[in-house]
This record gives sequence, C-alpha cells and structure tokens, in this order.
Amino acid sequence: MNQDYIIPNAWSIIEEGFEKDRVKSSESLFSIGNGAMGQRANFEEFYSGDTFQGSYIAGVYYPDKTKVGWWKNGYPEYFAKVLNAPVWIGINIEINGEQFDLNTCKEVKNFRRELNMQEGLLDRSFVAVLPSGLEIEVFVRRFLAADLDELGAIKYDIKPLNGDANIVYKPYVDAHVKNEDANWEEIFWESIGSEIKGEQGFVQARTFKTHFNVVTYMENAIFINGEKQAITPSATKTEWKVEFTYEVNVKANETVTIQKFGGYVVSTNHKANELVTAAENVLAQANALGYEQLLTNQKQAWAQTWEMADITIDGDVKAQQGIRFNIFQLNQTYSGKDARLNIGPKGFTGEKYGGSTYWDTEAYCLPFYMATKNQEVARNLLTYRYNQLDKAIENAEKLGFTNGAALYPMVTMNGEECHNEWEITFEEIHRNAAIAFAVFNYTRFTGDESYIPEAGLEVLLGIARFWKQRVNWSTDKKQYVMLGVTGPNEYENNVNNNFHSNYCAQWCMNYLIEQAENVKTNYPEDFARIAAKTNITDAELAEMKEVAANIYFPYSEEFDVYLQQDGFLDKDLTPVSELAKEERPINQKWSWDRILRSAYIKQADTLQAFYYFEDDFSREQLEKHFDFYEPLTVHESSLSPCVHSIQAATLGRMEQAYTFYLRTSRLDLDDYNKEVHEGLHITSMAGTWMSIVEGFGGMRVKNDALYFEPRLPEQWEGFSFKINFRNQILKVNVNKGETTFELEGTEPLEVYVFDQKVVVQPSI
Amino acid sequence: MNQDYIIPNAWSIIEEGFEKDRVKSSESLFSIGNGAMGQRANFEEFYSGDTFQGSYIAGVYYPDKTKVGWWKNGYPEYFAKVLNAPVWIGINIEINGEQFDLNTCKEVKNFRRELNMQEGLLDRSFVAVLPSGLEIEVFVRRFLAADLDELGAIKYDIKPLNGDANIVYKPYVDAHVKNEDANWEEIFWESIGSEIKGEQGFVQARTFKTHFNVVTYMENAIFINGEKQAITPSATKTEWKVEFTYEVNVKANETVTIQKFGGYVVSTNHKANELVTAAENVLAQANALGYEQLLTNQKQAWAQTWEMADITIDGDVKAQQGIRFNIFQLNQTYSGKDARLNIGPKGFTGEKYGGSTYWDTEAYCLPFYMATKNQEVARNLLTYRYNQLDKAIENAEKLGFTNGAALYPMVTMNGEECHNEWEITFEEIHRNAAIAFAVFNYTRFTGDESYIPEAGLEVLLGIARFWKQRVNWSTDKKQYVMLGVTGPNEYENNVNNNFHSNYCAQWCMNYLIEQAENVKTNYPEDFARIAAKTNITDAELAEMKEVAANIYFPYSEEFDVYLQQDGFLDKDLTPVSELAKEERPINQKWSWDRILRSAYIKQADTLQAFYYFEDDFSREQLEKHFDFYEPLTVHESSLSPCVHSIQAATLGRMEQAYTFYLRTSRLDLDDYNKEVHEGLHITSMAGTWMSIVEGFGGMRVKNDALYFEPRLPEQWEGFSFKINFRNQILKVNVNKGETTFELEGTEPLEVYVFDQKVVVQPSI
Repeated sequence: MNQDYIIPNAWSIIEEGFEKDRVKSSESLFSIGNGAMGQRANFEEFYSGDTFQGSYIAGVYYPDKTKVGWWKNGYPEYFAKVLNAPVWIGINIEINGEQFDLNTCKEVKNFRRELNMQEGLLDRSFVAVLPSGLEIEVFVRRFLAADLDELGAIKYDIKPLNGDANIVYKPYVDAHVKNEDANWEEIFWESIGSEIKGEQGFVQARTFKTHFNVVTYMENAIFINGEKQAITPSATKTEWKVEFTYEVNVKANETVTIQKFGGYVVSTNHKANELVTAAENVLAQANALGYEQLLTNQKQAWAQTWEMADITIDGDVKAQQGIRFNIFQLNQTYSGKDARLNIGPKGFTGEKYGGSTYWDTEAYCLPFYMATKNQEVARNLLTYRYNQLDKAIENAEKLGFTNGAALYPMVTMNGEECHNEWEITFEEIHRNAAIAFAVFNYTRFTGDESYIPEAGLEVLLGIARFWKQRVNWSTDKKQYVMLGVTGPNEYENNVNNNFHSNYCAQWCMNYLIEQAENVKTNYPEDFARIAAKTNITDAELAEMKEVAANIYFPYSEEFDVYLQQDGFLDKDLTPVSELAKEERPINQKWSWDRILRSAYIKQADTLQAFYYFEDDFSREQLEKHFDFYEPLTVHESSLSPCVHSIQAATLGRMEQAYTFYLRTSRLDLDDYNKEVHEGLHITSMAGTWMSIVEGFGGMRVKNDALYFEPRLPEQWEGFSFKINFRNQILKVNVNKGETTFELEGTEPLEVYVFDQKVVVQPSI
Repeated sequence: MNQDYIIPNAWSIIEEGFEKDRVKSSESLFSIGNGAMGQRANFEEFYSGDTFQGSYIAGVYYPDKTKVGWWKNGYPEYFAKVLNAPVWIGINIEINGEQFDLNTCKEVKNFRRELNMQEGLLDRSFVAVLPSGLEIEVFVRRFLAADLDELGAIKYDIKPLNGDANIVYKPYVDAHVKNEDANWEEIFWESIGSEIKGEQGFVQARTFKTHFNVVTYMENAIFINGEKQAITPSATKTEWKVEFTYEVNVKANETVTIQKFGGYVVSTNHKANELVTAAENVLAQANALGYEQLLTNQKQAWAQTWEMADITIDGDVKAQQGIRFNIFQLNQTYSGKDARLNIGPKGFTGEKYGGSTYWDTEAYCLPFYMATKNQEVARNLLTYRYNQLDKAIENAEKLGFTNGAALYPMVTMNGEECHNEWEITFEEIHRNAAIAFAVFNYTRFTGDESYIPEAGLEVLLGIARFWKQRVNWSTDKKQYVMLGVTGPNEYENNVNNNFHSNYCAQWCMNYLIEQAENVKTNYPEDFARIAAKTNITDAELAEMKEVAANIYFPYSEEFDVYLQQDGFLDKDLTPVSELAKEERPINQKWSWDRILRSAYIKQADTLQAFYYFEDDFSREQLEKHFDFYEPLTVHESSLSPCVHSIQAATLGRMEQAYTFYLRTSRLDLDDYNKEVHEGLHITSMAGTWMSIVEGFGGMRVKNDALYFEPRLPEQWEGFSFKINFRNQILKVNVNKGETTFELEGTEPLEVYVFDQKVVVQPSI
C-alpha cells in the first residue's frame, strides 16, 4: 500500500482536504466515463499546479509513429495511442478581476471530492480564500449521461461569503490539446474550424492519419440563487477554441451558478459533415429534458446497472468500497453496446499502454461482462475479434506464417498490431489462446451454441493454424516443441517450451478439431460456407490432431510439477519472501537482465494455464503447482493477485486469498504500485470481480450447470453477488454458515454447492 | 557480390565514368583518413545530387539521448554518436557566373577517381561540359597529412578548354553540420564564433554536453599555370562559417589552381582558448614546408607504413587489391599513437553503429596492429581499456554486480556503455572475455611480461569477478550455469549456457588465477599495490577456482559436439544451403522471431571459441564442430567470413577458405551486404589480414615461438607478409612448393613450419 487518503465508504470515493501533491492521483481515481467518452477528474477552472489533463473518446485513436532503438523486421509502423481529446469541461473563472486558481488561493478549506458511484456523479466542494481575501463557497457537480452518451453536464456554484463579487464565467471548448504520451511530441489533431450559434459553441477537429472527425460542443446557462438569468454572453472564437464570457455581479451569500452542457459527436457515429447538426440535436434533447431530469435519468441508469452488477460485502467497508469502485469503473469504461469498442487497460483515465485491446479483455474482462450484463454484450466482445480476423491473418503473414494462420495483435485499436518490442510483439503469443478460450468460455457460460458456427469457428481455425505452424518437430525430443516465446510472465523472454503456451497451443488445436466436427455435423451449411472460405479439410484436421497429441511439456520429476519453461530448474529458486524489502519491486530496483535470469515471476504463468484449464488438473496438482510457483511470484502485474486469490480460495487458504483480494480490489485506491497518477488499472478490475465470484464464491460452469464452493473470508460477515446465467438472474448470498440463493426467472435452477445439488425456485 | 565497378588494380582503388547512383558508394570507398581525422570522399565543390556528407575527428563524439520503445533499468542515458564534424574541404566554384555542380553539367567525360593507397592520395579528374557549353578539365588531389595529422591539403585545377573563363573559387570552413544519424534530429554543435586573419579563416564550435572544442581552419592560394597569384580575396563571416572569394579571369587552356590547407585543432590536444593559435602554428608549418614537400612527406610516410604492413599476392589482382584496401583503411583509421583513441566499426567513413569501440578491437584488430606496428601500438589498445576499468566497474554495479566486478560496455566512447538493446547491452557479455583474451594474446605475441603486473592484472581481475558472479549454481545440473546471454551469434538472444560464453568465463577465471599467482611470485610489489586496491585474496582465488572447475557446457553425445546453447538440438537443423535464395539474407527477409527460433547463425559463435582457444581442442574436434556449425551459418556479420576462412584453411579446405577470403577482403569493394553507401566495415578488415596470416599462413605463437602452416590457395602463385615478432621483422614468402623467410634483425630466429624447426638467419 502506498497511500490511504481515500475515506472508506460503501458507495462513494471520498477525499477530504486539498493537497496539491494528491491532485494527479485524485484526477485518476475520480475519473468519470460513460462507455462512449470519459475524462480524468481535472478541475473545470484553470489550475496552475501539477496536473495531468486528459479527456478521451472511445474508439478515437492515433497511430503514432513507432519509436524503437533498432528496427526489426515485422515491427508495426505505428503504435496506436489513446488520444487526448478536445476539452469540453473547461470553465475559466475570474472573480473581482482575478483569475480563480486553486493553486494560488490563500487557503482552501473544507475541500471535499466525492465520486458517488451509486448515482454516477462527481462532486467537488470547498471554501476558497482568494488572494484578495474574498472567501467563496464552491460546489461543482459533473456527470456524463449514461443514457445520452454524447452528453456531459456540469453545475458550478459560487457563493461569495464575505463580500460582493463580480464573477466572470468563461466556459470554453478547446481542441488544441496534446498527448502526454506522444513519441515525437507532435500534435495529433488538426483544426477544421469553429462556430458559434447563439449561446452554443462548436469546435471541429480531425485526427491526422486516422481522420476521426470530432465536434466538441457546449451550451451554458447562468443562474442566481437558482433563478435563470437572461445574460447574453460575449464570445471569442479561434480555429481551435470557442469561449463565452458571462459576467455577473452578486452580493455576499448569493449563489451564482453556471450550468454547462457539452460533449462530443464523432464521425464514427454521424456523417462528418453533419456533426454540428448532430451536436445541436444532442443539445436540443438535453434542453428539452433539463438538468434536473437528466440528473434523475442518470441516477436511474446507474441504479439499473447496480441492480445487476452490485456485489455486497458485509463487515468490511474497505473491501466493499474496493469492489464497488472496480465494478463502477468497468461500467464507466465499457457499456457493451458497440462491437467496435473494447476495454483499454486504462479506460478513460490515462494514456499509458496506448491501444485499447489486450488479451486482458478475453482473459479477465469477458467473465465480468458475461455474468453481469446480457449475453449480447459478451458476444460483442467476441465479434470485435471476429471482425479483425483478416488483420490477424495479415499480421501472421508478416511474420512468415501461411495458409490462414492468424496471430492476433498484442495491442490493437483496429486489428493491426501496434506494439513494438520484439519479445512481446512477436513472442508473447499466448494472447492468441486467450481469444480462443474466450469463445469456449462464452459458449460454456451462455449456452449460446450459435456463435461458433456463425463466426467463432473461423477464429478458432486461424488460431489453431498458427499454433500448428508455430511448433516444430524436435528430432532430439521426438516431440513438437515451441521455441522463442514469452509467456504471461513477462519477466522471462524468448524461452523455449513455456508450459502455458504449449498447453494453450494443444488445447486450441484440440478445441478447433472438436468444434469443426461439431459444426460439420450440426451446422452443415455453416461448415460448407467456412470450408469454402478457409479450405479446411479432414486431412488438415488429422495433421493437427497428430501435432496436438505430441506437444512436449517440460516437467520435473523431482518436484512433480510442470516447468514454466525449459531450464527453469537451473535458476536460483530462493523465494520472494527472502528478498530484502529494498530490492522490491524488482522492476524498479533490478536491471532487466537480472530480472530475466531470476526465477521471479511477474504474474501467473503456469498457474494461468491452471486457471484456464482447471478441470484438466486435480486439486492436488493445483496445490503442488501453487506451492511451487506462488512463492516465486512478485505480483508486479495488476493482473496477478486476482488469479492467485481465486486459486488460494479454491485451495481453502482464505487468509492468503483475502490478502490477494485486497491487493487487487484496492490496487488503485491504495496505489500499491505507485503509479495511480498515470491512470487506473481498468482491466485488472475485472479480476477483482472474479476473485469474489470465482474465488470466494467458487463459481464454475460445468455440464451446463452452475457449481459453487462458497468460502467466506474471516474478515467478512457475508457477501452477495448476482449473475445472469442463461437469462435467469441468480443472486448468491454467502453468509456465515450458509449460502442462500434468490432467482429472478421463470424456471427452477439446479445448482451445485460443493457438488451437492440444490434446486433454486424462482422467487422474484 | 552486389557491385563490380571498381577497377582491379594492385595499388589503387579506381572508378571510371561518372554515375550519380554510385556517388554515395564511392564516397565511402574513397574515404581518406590519417588516424586523427578523416572524411568521406565528398566533392569539394557544391553537389546537388544524392550524397552523404561526412567528416569526422577521432575521439570527438556526442552523447545523443537514447531512443528506446520501453525503458528498462540499466539502460544508458545516451548513445554516443560518431560526430559529423565541421567541413574544411569545401570549395564552391562559379564559372562565368554559374555555380559549378557535377549534378547539373551537360556532360561529364573521362571521370576518374583514384585512391592511391601506396601514397595516401585521393585524386579526381574529369572534363565537364557546363550548362553554358563551356568545357573545363578538372584535376583535384586531396590528402590528409600522415605526419602532420591536424593538416589536410587540396589542389584543385581548372582548365577551360573551349573558351575563356571567369573563375571564382569560394573556399570555406563551416561548422553548421548535422548528423545523418541523430536520434532526435538535433544539432550537436554550438558556435563559438569565427575569425579571419589575413587569408586564414577559422571557425570555432563546441559540442553540446561533451564540450569538445574544435577550430576548423583554412588558408588558400591561387595559381595560374603553376604560378602563384597575388590576389586578395574578399571574405564573408558568420558565426558558423568563413568563406573567401577569389576571382580569376583566364583564357582557354590556362590552368587555374586553388591550393587549400585546412583541418582541425581540437581541445583534446590543445587548450580550448589557444586553438586559433594552434591552427596558426599548423598553417605556419605547412607554409614553411610547402605543398610539394608535404606531398613528398606523405609518400614517404605511407611508404614506411607499407614497408611493414604490406601483403603481396601473386596471380590474383582482385585479391591483392582487396587485402591492400583493408590494410590501407586500417592504417587510415588508427595509427596507434594515442591511447585515448580506438577503432570504430566505420572508421571515418560513416556514422552507423555510433561509438568507437566494440569487442571487434580486441578480437579482430589487435592481432593486425600487434604484428604490423611496434608493440607500443598494441599496448595502447590494452591501455585504453585499462583506463576505462573504473567505468566498467560502475557499469557492472548498475546491473547489480558488486566487489569490483567489471563489465566492459558493448559500445563506448569514454568507457560508459552507450548501447541500448537489452539483449545486447546486458546480455552480449562475451565482449568482456575478448578484452581478457587480448591481454593474453598480447603477452603471448610480444613477450612483453610487464603489462600484466603493471596494469593487466586489474583488468583480468575485474573481468573474472564479473564471470564468477554472473554464473549461478544449478541444483538441478549440480554445476555452474550461465543464464540469459547473447553470444557472438546475435541471431540468438537470452539463451542459457551459451558454450562460447561459458567457455570464455571459465578461461578468464583460470587465466586470472594463473596470472595472479605469477604476479604474486614474480612482481610482489605490483601484487601488493593491486591487492591493496582490489582486496584480492587467496580465498577469493580459491573460490574462483572452484567455480571455474565446475562450469557446465552443453554437449551432444549424438553429434559429439558442444552445443551452442541449451536446447539447440530442438531446432530445425536444415542447412543454409537448402534455403531458397529469395529468403536471404534472412535479416532482411525474415521476421525477428523467425530468425531467433531458427538454427541459423549470424557469425562464428561456438567456432569463435574454437578460434580463441584453438590449442584446447584437437583438429578432429575443430573439424567436427566446423562441419556441424558452418552449414548453419549465414555469415550476415562482416566479422563472420574471416574466422571461417582461417578455420577452413587450418582444415586444409582451401577452396572454401578462398571463397571466405574473397568475401571478407572485398566485402566493401564488391558491396556484398548492400550497404557500402553507409560507410566501410573497418574492424572486419583486420579479419581479412588474419585470414591471410593466420589462415593461409597458418601463423600461431606457441611457447614463445612462431609456428606456420602455409597453404596456398590454388588461385594464387604466391603470397607474402611481414610480422614484427618481438622487435625482429620476419617476412614470410609462400610460393608454390616452398615457403621462404627473410629476417630483419640481429638474432637468428627459430620458427616451425608444420612443426619442423627452421632457423632463419638475419638477412637484411
């Protein structure tokens, strides 16, 4: 843990007191989003202190020219960056002729920020003593409409306390923004121009290269003591920016409010030449509803989301806050409505890692969205990859693969690879298996048999073909080996016979063979279509079967465990617990070569395979491997603690499971990795959800039924979660001594608790 | 082979005919240097065509900010770049009011360039038809004084052939230059100002960060038909540049000549505030001698160099031209006078690879300089590393090593690492062994026992300490293993138990132990001094002995060869000969991951160890390993063919040895690797010398005596070379059927020819 200023609260993230050195951290933690857009909790008004300004629009990216020391064949030409979008939230303020800036106030009292997760609202309040001595009381509320997802709303109240005041609000929209993360310090936007229509302002900008066209717009209104004022603002306009100026004189204790509606309309959803009209339409809708109704709608929309997604934890408010924060952020990042979008590792909270889509989506996020939303959302995530299959085949061709072999990119925006470290880009190929596994996982959970014949089989085939070509026959071992890979544990590069990757390869090939036979038998028309397109033949499947059956797995007789890779036992196996504290985290303290040759594991690797393919191994095997690998694991990836939490719970090691749970659920709130100022770890938040549902709840799907092994951490009195299982909603309440179920649905549901059948009757 | 426009000639590199697309290639091939400075064969006059302008000053570099995709702990902050220096050669020319530019002439006839290697002169002549129709005959000669190494001289003759001409010469010096190879496109120089004193011009510039101060200077004279003219030039001056303007009117068939003296004086050799005076002194010396005497001196200096360094080959002019070109370039690059300097991979001919010093110096260049110059030169190369020992210890500390362990950098200018790919920087550590081996090699060849007690032992100790810490005990193998290295074959990264590296580590530790005992016994005062400084103890040596004795070497029973690394036999061992032609060179045709997992070898790796430590292995072992590894070798490093040529010759495979020889000696002349326009491969040129002396000559030093196994390639009638062996000069003449020796010295010399003793009497 690195910080603990966030006040424990079941439903809100709260900060009290204004500390300048926490500003960037809070900007990340109090970020808001609505799936279509989002931004860091930057102040609306000018702030001269240390800040990381960031607004983001889903799916709008920039292909920044790649930066490498030495170019290697096969590198992509660009690295897609999450794009810092134009600013719509800005409201500069002058009071009695002085610019208002929290950084230069004499004093800031009663500062309080609250991210109301229940209702989807960001509030900020304080009393500021201005350099002139004037005290003002401020309350600001901001939200991004969950239903009207092109709209954001702000109310900004100022009440002078000890004197009259001339208050000037200067709301603006500004497209002249720069990425913090830009390889060559270039601007990624070009101005298309700006426009003023009455009290509405619009700036239009287009990204270079990708040509995303965005209109950033606003309309404002001024109130005194709640009463709308008829003030005609003056306006200024440059090609990049529109700014209105509203001047108001008020007496002490009168409240002046500016209400700002604003947001983005984007050429991915509208014609590029109709964007201003589209923005006008959004504003018309917003004005018709009015601020109060928008607020009511916001609360309702979030209530609906929580109705399904909430997890309650009794007796441990920090754990409760942690899980709700995770669920809230996941829902802010991705709504599942749009198959073109995906879940970026930092969501709308920062720029690091670029791109939007990692294997995190399939391995960590899919289970969450699959269980807490309707199955269409999960299917959209699969469709995203199906739509990018051609690009994955091209990507594999660039690396020398043939015959429709597909290698999905490590990081992508549009299906093209945009990562450029050879040891990751070319070698961390287990990502390909996560995508196949997601198809299996989706089908297993939802029971939707239609995806595979309609689309999934082609994806599975491309992936299986890749694996078949990626292994080679070792005349020495008389088996197929896989050379030169990086497993999920990125603290090993270019290793041979990584157990995880080899196991995944075998599984993918076998699953493809099984599903090809299934489609051939049960969906002959689909099979004919796919065969015509892909030239899949029985001979190819037979060959693949032979390869899959003869994959080599490194194994130690001495320890009776599969080895993470060839030669693993040559390493010094001193456990992490014996490392001096000042040596950690090793990724900050050790040189890269030392990390590589150490046995230390960044995140679950062999154990990740045990997580995916749990049913293939006995509990005894799991225990043996957990005891071998976990002590060597430094958990320096945000994706690490959750898998270990689940496995520790599965093994009944509740204290350890609980520790891992806290680390994953409060990773950002408590800033374990000292990097929350860069943004939040969105994708690992889904791992937190899994820790509860699959870890403490022990939920699995086997043979079309739900299985539970509920285990309550000692610290908790109880917990509950809901899952949408095949269109019936099951609530699971785990309490001391008993587990109860509530079912919203029409049919009784058979579930298994520690392998004992329980029939749950619809109760709601 | 990629080009063959260079005309075969025993003593000169000659190009005939003006082809614009050969300009950059010829700029490399016709480069001149004198150890202290050098430049590409850029035209003196303005040239608007495609050109790579480059002038370089030995030891003057720039620490360019490192460029990496993702930063890793331990990376250096900068990458030292060979610095493009100010221009002293420039002479712009206007004829009848038109700028003279070979790129825009109507016609260029009888164009001829000759690099006269015997005398160290670069000549260019042609007849140009100007756009106006005027024909001019031009002859230009340029040389860099071999003795006065801050001075260069140019004579530039113009003779109008078919009309009178107004000829304006505008000689200039200009410090406003940019590197082709600059990570961030920055200028590396700042101007300190310029000065004109009579007909002398000076510009002073200083490198940012490193603060090398350089005055670039010139003085000119004009001649008509050889008669000096009293013309007072007009002059212009900016902070970056001084230019004089000489205007002359001549009749058809009169020859106008400008004579330019110019060059650099540098703050590494003079006080920074006395540089202009230093330049004036050089000019005074040059003027006192006069151009003709300078020319005579130049011829004499090169005659002296050739007297010792020449190798003759009879009956094969291309082979003769190749070896002389290599010897010439090596002597242009490094004179051995200055222990602060070293041999950059591109010398003064280009910027690629940055830095000046690689392991090439010790592994490839030392034997050449050791045998063809006096032993002080070779010792200077060792001293260079001794002087950088502290930096090597710091470098190792940065990576986590302790107790005086030293890791010499992969690439350096001043002892600090400036390479930044982890797989090279942190892992290609065999370079460390090359430096220890050079100490051994020097001592063995020169018989100079004093270097080790005076300096070498400290270097050997730092290196041995590194190896001892770099291996770790494998409880699995019950031996010491070395994980995560890159061997000389850079087509493998991060491998375990690279035979070459492990063998080197063992050898270094054993050699240190042996030499420590030697110094302790025979130079007790030196030992006491070193022990006080380094804390070397018997206990440490005993521990080291134990480690060295238990190093693991990967070995195949099946093939009876040491394996390049663990797991090598898992690879597909299809020989290079079965690769389709369009797949090669694989570094241009294959993705990096494919190269890595292939068995293909960039350059000698296991065989490099067999080269270093030949006496440790039998000829049968050499043959077995050569037959195993050479067929898998793609020779895509310039350092590869020479080692294979030597080993093929050693095994009596003369046809193969000859093929490798041609490839190494004419690598640049015939542009085998399609990159000569970027500069020459200077360090591999020493490998060419080794191919003849150690390959065809079979020269070795054992037990303080010279051994030869002369083998003549079928294509040759004979060859000869000279070596300076312990201050006697032995000339070896290998002819069909017999090998004869000539000795310049005072004592009879016992040598061995195929292990038969021959006593050579001093004959000269």
